[in-house]
Amino acid sequence: MRYEEFTIEGRNAVLEAFRAGKSIDKLFILDGCKDGPIQSILREARKTDCIISFVKRERLDQMSETGKHQGVICYAAAYNYAEVDDILANARNNNEQPFIIILDGIEDPHNLGAMIRTAEQVGAHGVIISKRRACGLTATVARTSAGALNYIPVAKVTNISKTIEDLKKEGLWFVCADMNGTVMYDLDLKGPIGLVIGSEGEGVSRLVKEKCDFVASIPMKGRIDSLNASVAMGVLSYEIARQRLSN
Amino acid sequence: MRYEEFTIEGRNAVLEAFRAGKSIDKLFILDGCKDGPIQSILREARKTDCIISFVKRERLDQMSETGKHQGVICYAAAYNYAEVDDILANARNNNEQPFIIILDGIEDPHNLGAMIRTAEQVGAHGVIISKRRACGLTATVARTSAGALNYIPVAKVTNISKTIEDLKKEGLWFVCADMNGTVMYDLDLKGPIGLVIGSEGEGVSRLVKEKCDFVASIPMKGRIDSLNASVAMGVLSYEIARQRLSN
Repeated sequence: MRYEEFTIEGRNAVLEAFRAGKSIDKLFILDGCKDGPIQSILREARKTDCIISFVKRERLDQMSETGKHQGVICYAAAYNYAEVDDILANARNNNEQPFIIILDGIEDPHNLGAMIRTAEQVGAHGVIISKRRACGLTATVARTSAGALNYIPVAKVTNISKTIEDLKKEGLWFVCADMNGTVMYDLDLKGPIGLVIGSEGEGVSRLVKEKCDFVASIPMKGRIDSLNASVAMGVLSYEIARQRLSN
Repeated sequence: MRYEEFTIEGRNAVLEAFRAGKSIDKLFILDGCKDGPIQSILREARKTDCIISFVKRERLDQMSETGKHQGVICYAAAYNYAEVDDILANARNNNEQPFIIILDGIEDPHNLGAMIRTAEQVGAHGVIISKRRACGLTATVARTSAGALNYIPVAKVTNISKTIEDLKKEGLWFVCADMNGTVMYDLDLKGPIGLVIGSEGEGVSRLVKEKCDFVASIPMKGRIDSLNASVAMGVLSYEIARQRLSN
């Protein structure tokens, strides 16, 4: 397993993590703290796509595992992110038409881990996650993925809509999951495809949905609203796999 | 929502819970404690199918929410269990062939809740869970089921193998999930059916598997071992639903 502890605390440790090129998802700095070392950390952080938050001391104290955060804590990815090109290369190397899972704002690390696990098993070539309002590849995600994180490339992008546009130029079609879509059995889900899954609460965002070619729904016979996000992703991605198998 | 607090502490409260006929999953008694009130509680508990554990004081102190457990704590089901007959009646009332989900030893309440949620959505008529070495209908399960627990009957049985035998007499076929089974697309999963899902770690137990008519597997293209239990249950039960729809 390539994943380890992912909270880094204290000025030197955080600065060195940035300088060593570690993938850092989030940086928390004590609100009002503006001295030299903090400025150096901020300079390094701004070169990356790390999310920076200024927080109260109580929050830092609560997050701290060592009790010695010196006003700064960061969350490093438990894993190094791949690029979208790595995912396309993975499909090419397997002589398969691309099958990519795009996760638009999944916040729960257990759901994200389960989805990465399913993506690997269903034969997808990679997973794309969003940078903002979403969970990164934390240690919990790595654990919940049951090791799948070591075998499937996961890329993080700033703008999912833009990424979908770029991938369309590569010949991919996009289908997103939504309760008001066409029943998945009635859609042709073969060929180079991207499956877009929205967040637990909000679903797929409007801008992203507009970029999709199809909207697929899972038949729901029940009286409640929806399925668990990772179950819905599993059911939809296996319907894609079934159709691809029957090619 | 019908579910509320589920930890009951103290001698009178626990004794009254039993006498009121509440569904109590587990009873914890201070090891060595044998006085009159405790004997009365034990007598009531033994009339039910509640699991009784004798534990150390530290364990009780840790479990206690009030700090006043008086040597006894019980976990009441957040929900009243149904009977297997209720599940069959549910199918009859809908003029449908029975579709039952049997969960053999699911220990994680989040997985159990997600599976009950999926069972309701996929159109199953009920869920059967095992009494021993399994999670009961706790408040966490109720929450994770997103309310599905209010709409689908869940029965708890002592002996899953025996229940399968009884249901076979009602005309049901049984399929269990296992990595070494026949690929699910190649099985005929129509008609009155019971889908058996095993525990996260162990899978379906040998005795239960022997009672099943088919063993179904989900195609796995990945390098890791398996899917998350609730995802696997979702994928398999939707394959059954798909085949039933195409009837």
